[in-house]
Amino acid sequence: MNELQKLYERIIQRVNINLRELDFDAEPYSTGIIQPEQMNKFYAFYGITTDHPLNLVFKNSGLAGSYFLGKCRVSNSLLYKSDIRGDELKREGASFQYQGFTIDLNDDELIDIRDSALAKTLVHNFSHDPETPEVFFIKDTLAMDYANIHGAPTDGAFLGPFATVDLTTIHDSVIGTYSYIQAGEISHMKIDPGTIWVHAQDQFNFYYQHDPDLLKKYASVVAGDRPHGIIFDFIEEHEEAFQRLFDAVNIETIESVPKTASLDRYAVVLPNTTIADNVLISQRAYLENSHIGKGSNAQENCYIIHSKLDGFNVTAHGAKIIESDLESDVFVGFNSFLYGKKGARLHIGKGCIVMPHTIIDIDAPLHIPKDHLVWGLIRNDAELEQNSISFDALKAHKTAFNRGNLHFEGNGYLFVKAFKDRIDHILDANGAFFNGENNTGHAQRNQNLSLNTIQPFQFGSMKGLYPNITIEL
Amino acid sequence: MNELQKLYERIIQRVNINLRELDFDAEPYSTGIIQPEQMNKFYAFYGITTDHPLNLVFKNSGLAGSYFLGKCRVSNSLLYKSDIRGDELKREGASFQYQGFTIDLNDDELIDIRDSALAKTLVHNFSHDPETPEVFFIKDTLAMDYANIHGAPTDGAFLGPFATVDLTTIHDSVIGTYSYIQAGEISHMKIDPGTIWVHAQDQFNFYYQHDPDLLKKYASVVAGDRPHGIIFDFIEEHEEAFQRLFDAVNIETIESVPKTASLDRYAVVLPNTTIADNVLISQRAYLENSHIGKGSNAQENCYIIHSKLDGFNVTAHGAKIIESDLESDVFVGFNSFLYGKKGARLHIGKGCIVMPHTIIDIDAPLHIPKDHLVWGLIRNDAELEQNSISFDALKAHKTAFNRGNLHFEGNGYLFVKAFKDRIDHILDANGAFFNGENNTGHAQRNQNLSLNTIQPFQFGSMKGLYPNITIEL
Repeated sequence: MNELQKLYERIIQRVNINLRELDFDAEPYSTGIIQPEQMNKFYAFYGITTDHPLNLVFKNSGLAGSYFLGKCRVSNSLLYKSDIRGDELKREGASFQYQGFTIDLNDDELIDIRDSALAKTLVHNFSHDPETPEVFFIKDTLAMDYANIHGAPTDGAFLGPFATVDLTTIHDSVIGTYSYIQAGEISHMKIDPGTIWVHAQDQFNFYYQHDPDLLKKYASVVAGDRPHGIIFDFIEEHEEAFQRLFDAVNIETIESVPKTASLDRYAVVLPNTTIADNVLISQRAYLENSHIGKGSNAQENCYIIHSKLDGFNVTAHGAKIIESDLESDVFVGFNSFLYGKKGARLHIGKGCIVMPHTIIDIDAPLHIPKDHLVWGLIRNDAELEQNSISFDALKAHKTAFNRGNLHFEGNGYLFVKAFKDRIDHILDANGAFFNGENNTGHAQRNQNLSLNTIQPFQFGSMKGLYPNITIEL
Repeated sequence: MNELQKLYERIIQRVNINLRELDFDAEPYSTGIIQPEQMNKFYAFYGITTDHPLNLVFKNSGLAGSYFLGKCRVSNSLLYKSDIRGDELKREGASFQYQGFTIDLNDDELIDIRDSALAKTLVHNFSHDPETPEVFFIKDTLAMDYANIHGAPTDGAFLGPFATVDLTTIHDSVIGTYSYIQAGEISHMKIDPGTIWVHAQDQFNFYYQHDPDLLKKYASVVAGDRPHGIIFDFIEEHEEAFQRLFDAVNIETIESVPKTASLDRYAVVLPNTTIADNVLISQRAYLENSHIGKGSNAQENCYIIHSKLDGFNVTAHGAKIIESDLESDVFVGFNSFLYGKKGARLHIGKGCIVMPHTIIDIDAPLHIPKDHLVWGLIRNDAELEQNSISFDALKAHKTAFNRGNLHFEGNGYLFVKAFKDRIDHILDANGAFFNGENNTGHAQRNQNLSLNTIQPFQFGSMKGLYPNITIEL
């Protein structure tokens, strides 16, 4: 057994120890996520700029994925196609606000991952945990395909495919397939598949549960088998287009990208796509025959196909927008699957918020009026009626209501405000509001990223593993 | 002025300080070697295996070239297309023999380059200096196109284009265009262009001077201008074939490479070329329509075109073999230019040694009998007669003789033996004698090199410079 295989088994054991109280065995789900005998066939890459103090280290036996942008420090870890971006890491001397506390930072913020396996996994942003403002860590964590860990210390955990933990601290938990959790400090919990849970103490609690039988059709995983469903099939169908990005050193420049916008080297852009000012297209985004309006951002692993986005649209990590027309300021959350069809287009009105992990799968045209929140599974007008609410109506709610599979508690006004504020922050950070002089963001600053590639050892007991690399500016 | 430009000017100044007593100004020769505004358009690469403890560091402002294989530590340095290989670096605990001394090594041998600019430059092998057996350093050194530094601490020096310093320690010296120096410890010397000097104290002294007027036609440089001549034109004509090696990530595998041979990822191989067992084809070698016989090695920057090499042939760094037939065991030294033509092929008999920096430029077939040493400029039978000697005749010389531009002193037997021993070592180190089990060398071990690429910063004051990278196994 070589070092890579040993490492992988050690990590699975660690995760299982963490999850022992939840009576969960990660092993049968883990087989096939990373195929050790395949690992030496890939190469990884990492992006550096002088703006991002990248400092990769892979202690002992790190296996590098791709695109670490910002500090890092990995230990005994197995990362695969990872995108540990950390491009908003806090700097020494900065201060971090948390519930009235002003926390001064003694050091530059680090990312620090230990004994972890992360497969095809995104880890972004910065630590929102006031207890570790300088370290953005993940330990003993196994994450399946297309899982997202967003802005969060994440202890021993198992994330199912398409699971998202957002802005959150999470300890020794199992997050089910296609579940979205933004709930602060949770631990020792086993989250069922298809759970959409947004909780802010004393403010609001949004809790939606996808129907398990209906969800299976889109994304499902059983022990011992690979994940399957329409969303997996969709991704596999589009996989080939990414291959040439990895086969060629220089991708031909797309003429129509404005100077104020940024198109990642590892994004797929197929005709006829137009990109407006202040747009950010992230790595592994897939654009085909679409218009990306001014100030929009298309985040990692998103797909925008045969669609028109009017401007200031956020397409979050892993969101898929097909045959859709989005008016300006529409937000489409993580891993949402907006599955319009030819002759059955989806239209979303100005300012709408599509909750993370929403599935819209239609066979007739559907129109979502402006300033609405939509969630869950929507396949027709009746389901839209059940799984949406206007901001005005939601803001008026002060206690609790049920609507279909949704249970909402708390202050609707605060909920809408929290979301809108975050969207505004995302647009701002990404450079949507750049005016030629001020308000630069990732769209303006990422333009000239240096991309380095690394290849694992090709033979011997270290086959498939990488040496440690330290980068210092 | 950006950091890259500042760095370059600082290095030129350092070199000039070192060379002040020789009344030499490196500046007018340096312009154009590295064009700072071009530097951010390239990428560099480095090869790693678990057999070679590569440990790159570029202190402060290193600019990386390519293919550092083995330890390294660069400081304030500017490297460009460099190939600092060090794949025979000595290890801690090993012992190094020098003139009857057995020197035990306290540490792994390092390469350690400081304040240097090396452009399109090879630095190979290990330190032959008994005073620094653990460090293989080069300081304050400016080297022009296709210069070679081979196995040698090299203090403040200026190497002209196609200059070679071999197995040697050299301090504060200027080595002229197309000069080859293998003379132990030399310092404060200004070597004229076209000097071939091989000196071993109390054993032999080989000293040949190319005719300056004739040499100009092949390789020449004047202050303030780029180098020119037939050899430069030849290289430029073949430059394009290398471009695709850098443009594609995966080069199609050439079916005909035996399992015991090794073909570098960054070598050019054009039809119809055959590669036999135990062959080593190094990076930036160029092969076209040739047969490379068993146990041969084609070293960095060499060209073998329309030629047949029978086996156990060494084609040293930068040697060019065109329209030639080489019997087995022929050695072609550094930067030699064997310029046969269609209908005017060059034939070299078994066991011959073509001295480094030999030019053979013929318009009628030429036949060199077996077991001969050849040197200098040879354009016809008469010049061959003047610039060659059979090993038997040379071995018989015990004092001194002159022959054309050659002055030879000392023991001819020792001269032939020293050369033959070295050739044998080169073949052995490269795996020529691998028998399926024993005698592995670079040909067998380099097969599965991992290749990583690095790109300089694309904007800001660091534009064109690289961050520091430390690799630890």
